[in-house]
Amino acid sequence: MDNDILFVQLFDIYKGLLTDYQRELFNMRYFLDLSFAEIAVETGASRQSAAGGIKKIKDKLLEYEKALKLKALYDDLEDFAERYLSPAGKQALKEILGR
Amino acid sequence: MDNDILFVQLFDIYKGLLTDYQRELFNMRYFLDLSFAEIAVETGASRQSAAGGIKKIKDKLLEYEKALKLKALYDDLEDFAERYLSPAGKQALKEILGR
Repeated sequence: MDNDILFVQLFDIYKGLLTDYQRELFNMRYFLDLSFAEIAVETGASRQSAAGGIKKIKDKLLEYEKALKLKALYDDLEDFAERYLSPAGKQALKEILGR
Repeated sequence: MDNDILFVQLFDIYKGLLTDYQRELFNMRYFLDLSFAEIAVETGASRQSAAGGIKKIKDKLLEYEKALKLKALYDDLEDFAERYLSPAGKQALKEILGR
């Protein structure tokens, strides 16, 4: 489950680099909590192909994080906010990061 | 030239998503200031292929910015730093962003 949280965070950061189909697959698996068999029914693909599609998305997300380290950056900015920012500064940073 | 500065900034942010060959091409064009003909000699490709390779990299960089908007984020964080941060806070932010 901890691992699931990581992939949901990475998806939230990097979803703009995925295709519409990959976003839909990820949504079915991680937000609608469908099994691979159920995803196969929804997409008209085989169960194996659904599982392979999800695996490929997870690999992509890890590859993007390795290349850009944005999750690490956001984590660091959270620590930074605690340490250096007033409540108004925290709110302003939240708005910049939340766009 | 303004446009060149934009692409150098985008390259600095997204180079981790490019291939080694694309990074090398970009380096020859934007940092070593080689002509397409000179790049062609260096890479053993045609002049047209060198120009096409650079064009493809620029398209990729614009596509990444459209998807992730990191240059926009960094620009906003600069404004934010001016407004909300002490000198120590600015230094800490600079270190987080400069990794």
